[in-house]
Amino acid sequence: MSELHWKTAITKIEPNKIFLRGYPLHELMGRITFSQAIYLALKGELPSEKVGKLIDAILVSSIDHGATPPSVLTARTVVSTGADLNSAVSAGILAISKYHGGAIEEAMGVFEDALKRMGEKGLSEEEVVSEIIKEKKEKGERISGFGHRIHTKDPRTQKLFSLAKELGFSGKYVSIAKAFEKGLEKVLGKTLPINVDGAIAALLCELGIPKELGNSFFIMARVPGLIAHIYEEKTRMKPMRKIHPTDHEYDGPEERKL
Amino acid sequence: MSELHWKTAITKIEPNKIFLRGYPLHELMGRITFSQAIYLALKGELPSEKVGKLIDAILVSSIDHGATPPSVLTARTVVSTGADLNSAVSAGILAISKYHGGAIEEAMGVFEDALKRMGEKGLSEEEVVSEIIKEKKEKGERISGFGHRIHTKDPRTQKLFSLAKELGFSGKYVSIAKAFEKGLEKVLGKTLPINVDGAIAALLCELGIPKELGNSFFIMARVPGLIAHIYEEKTRMKPMRKIHPTDHEYDGPEERKL
Amino acid sequence: MSELHWKTAITKIEPNKIFLRGYPLHELMGRITFSQAIYLALKGELPSEKVGKLIDAILVSSIDHGATPPSVLTARTVVSTGADLNSAVSAGILAISKYHGGAIEEAMGVFEDALKRMGEKGLSEEEVVSEIIKEKKEKGERISGFGHRIHTKDPRTQKLFSLAKELGFSGKYVSIAKAFEKGLEKVLGKTLPINVDGAIAALLCELGIPKELGNSFFIMARVPGLIAHIYEEKTRMKPMRKIHPTDHEYDGPEERKL
Amino acid sequence: MSELHWKTAITKIEPNKIFLRGYPLHELMGRITFSQAIYLALKGELPSEKVGKLIDAILVSSIDHGATPPSVLTARTVVSTGADLNSAVSAGILAISKYHGGAIEEAMGVFEDALKRMGEKGLSEEEVVSEIIKEKKEKGERISGFGHRIHTKDPRTQKLFSLAKELGFSGKYVSIAKAFEKGLEKVLGKTLPINVDGAIAALLCELGIPKELGNSFFIMARVPGLIAHIYEEKTRMKPMRKIHPTDHEYDGPEERKL
Repeated sequence: MSELHWKTAITKIEPNKIFLRGYPLHELMGRITFSQAIYLALKGELPSEKVGKLIDAILVSSIDHGATPPSVLTARTVVSTGADLNSAVSAGILAISKYHGGAIEEAMGVFEDALKRMGEKGLSEEEVVSEIIKEKKEKGERISGFGHRIHTKDPRTQKLFSLAKELGFSGKYVSIAKAFEKGLEKVLGKTLPINVDGAIAALLCELGIPKELGNSFFIMARVPGLIAHIYEEKTRMKPMRKIHPTDHEYDGPEERKL
Repeated sequence: MSELHWKTAITKIEPNKIFLRGYPLHELMGRITFSQAIYLALKGELPSEKVGKLIDAILVSSIDHGATPPSVLTARTVVSTGADLNSAVSAGILAISKYHGGAIEEAMGVFEDALKRMGEKGLSEEEVVSEIIKEKKEKGERISGFGHRIHTKDPRTQKLFSLAKELGFSGKYVSIAKAFEKGLEKVLGKTLPINVDGAIAALLCELGIPKELGNSFFIMARVPGLIAHIYEEKTRMKPMRKIHPTDHEYDGPEERKL
Repeated sequence: MSELHWKTAITKIEPNKIFLRGYPLHELMGRITFSQAIYLALKGELPSEKVGKLIDAILVSSIDHGATPPSVLTARTVVSTGADLNSAVSAGILAISKYHGGAIEEAMGVFEDALKRMGEKGLSEEEVVSEIIKEKKEKGERISGFGHRIHTKDPRTQKLFSLAKELGFSGKYVSIAKAFEKGLEKVLGKTLPINVDGAIAALLCELGIPKELGNSFFIMARVPGLIAHIYEEKTRMKPMRKIHPTDHEYDGPEERKL
Repeated sequence: MSELHWKTAITKIEPNKIFLRGYPLHELMGRITFSQAIYLALKGELPSEKVGKLIDAILVSSIDHGATPPSVLTARTVVSTGADLNSAVSAGILAISKYHGGAIEEAMGVFEDALKRMGEKGLSEEEVVSEIIKEKKEKGERISGFGHRIHTKDPRTQKLFSLAKELGFSGKYVSIAKAFEKGLEKVLGKTLPINVDGAIAALLCELGIPKELGNSFFIMARVPGLIAHIYEEKTRMKPMRKIHPTDHEYDGPEERKL
């Protein structure tokens, strides 16, 4: 044991035995979903099936958003130079930063702050929300998680909230998020609907995920999407093509029902 | 429409509408698992629940393997310098290369080659396997997916195969993988059991996943594990510590049952 | 010309003609050093030979610092998995962050702040330095660019300052940096000598480099060092070895004179 | 000393002493250029001033090539999301792969192969070159380092060759490169002039640089160019803009003379 000896509480490895947060990994296999295992890995406790279902919905909601996001353009550009798949994924993730995916962590911070102020100051949701919006406005800052370039009524937000309600996770944070939506309309005089990042932020708060892990849910969700784009680029396109950031069209299967 | 106009078959985006491979994303949410959505994103078709369950098991099997793998050490080293979470994930993925995670794609190639030779030459599984092992041996090459530094009887392999059987995916490729295990013992005179990479390779072949996507399953599975390590490093350790690659001990929850 | 049309002031490309900041690139070749070209690319103006010499010294000073820095360990760990050279360089650069290389930008900010306060408040160097040190101390913050884990009298710092003097770049910022060294000793009661990052910070301020580019000089300097380590790892070591972060010894050429 | 003890021959660190390949680093500072230090770090021996000058020219030749290369588009896209400078540089380098920068290593391999065949088979340059071109043509492969999308008579190539001659490095490899240019014209019936990658490849062969380090010269050269683009993107453009890959125009200083 050297002076560099250190400790970790994630996974225990012994010959022919692997324990994730104390659970034998092979016993988890076949009994919990990947989404439940993600929660277990990050939070240290096995989630209920309902939590697993909510995480499934969160991750499915953000798996891909077409070819326009900078992470996709980055990943496609890199693989187009002949790079390996892992390099292209890696580059794509480097583009998931402040302005792309970063809204989740920021919104979680705002929602947590609102709840804290409600408790500390004995103010109503409406009062706190109004206070925060004004403070932000004075500083010239936006509130992350509201408004979308394309979607005025994001179907993902609505589904996330209806699922959360159904599964029993529509608590204080969802309420606060909705209060912000109302408050923003009042103060700004225009509708800035909760976007998918804002909805995910509220739900991750409900699940007790620390906000420092907020963006990681976007990263985990988007990795398969990036891989789909990388594979399509590699198998369908010529290397070193010039990749137009917006002038592309969808030619996959027609709209279909489950 | 510029001369750079291009096409993509993954996701269609319209105001308030998002279609993944033709399916409205919000209808998928709450109805399919993340693992099913991964398959849909990559293969273009909605998988059955059974396929989803097998992918869940594959991803759960590889979510983490302790603090020793190079991807973990890389991610921890990077975050320890004060870097953002996405940078650390990205660096970790760069370490998932030929010798770490790369076995899946290589094994898929060997299993596909074996099946092809059986068909073309009219040889038995045993004959083809023996032929390939000899060829590899002459070239001084190893067959990927067999043998493990630590595990002589990997519990993940066994669970993957038993689940595959139960779910109805134990077909030709699983049989070929097992034939290689026997063949290697015969030729080399020592046991090189199918490791988790080899088992995953066989199952991805059964699911019709192209081998070029083999390692991507390892990447998708391991990203949450990397994030758990990055978060632990950030919240529990001092910045810029010297990270010993092996001298660490597990101090998480004791062994527990589901 | 699309609505996405944009402008750049760095390099003009025409058939058989390349102009860097207006200068024909082939005329620069053979007439200016790489260091001068770096200044031209970043600042937009051709530097004098003296500026070029100072940049040469800055870049040479930081080309490598042995096998212990996290960027080196990261790059070696990644290439050890069989990754390509560019992936390993890339991962190494991700480790050049806040606590590793980040001191240059931070120190530049402090030095600029000090000069600004001297002008605005009509205070002496000593007074401003003392003020800033006290403020930082109260906030529990360190002043970047002073003190070193190993070197109490860093030979690189002394050489950089003597060269700067010789070449005529020992101005206000160098003076401020030295005032901080004295001030820190007075306030803290212990010597925290200007380290190489602090010296580089002072000199980049003298050269009018914006502080946002401070760390980029460390990155540019260190890339060749990382490449030397990657190449050594690839040609001398076994793949997937466990890389001890400190227990290594130098076995290259004995000390020699120029 | 643990069982993980290892050795490195690059840099020796002692308190207040740093030796690069045996030379005290502070004695190198102010006496050699960055380019000479790069050679020393990579090759282990101090180069002559002439070698330094040739490396300077090589690195200056590739410092930037406008906003179109994938490495630039990648770096700009990443920084545009609010990422740190080091992340954007890192992503840019991931795009320096097979089809972008990769030609140097490939061409070095071809030139080395040609020289080897001349020695082994006692054939003339012309014969060997013709043999290799035919072999490549039969396999449907291109010879890297010849032809350019934009430049039919690349001014960088000509300058590199004239400098090499002047400095005394125009040897067998330059001759072989020129023989390939002639040979390609003969066999293909069209001119494929040596491009800058091909010229750099020939010169790095002359300098005894191993071909596995070929692309690293492109990476080292291009890092400052990437940084210039990242800084321009950050200071001049709006975050998250859609970056057109070709529709941009130069608006920097007019053509000017040294």
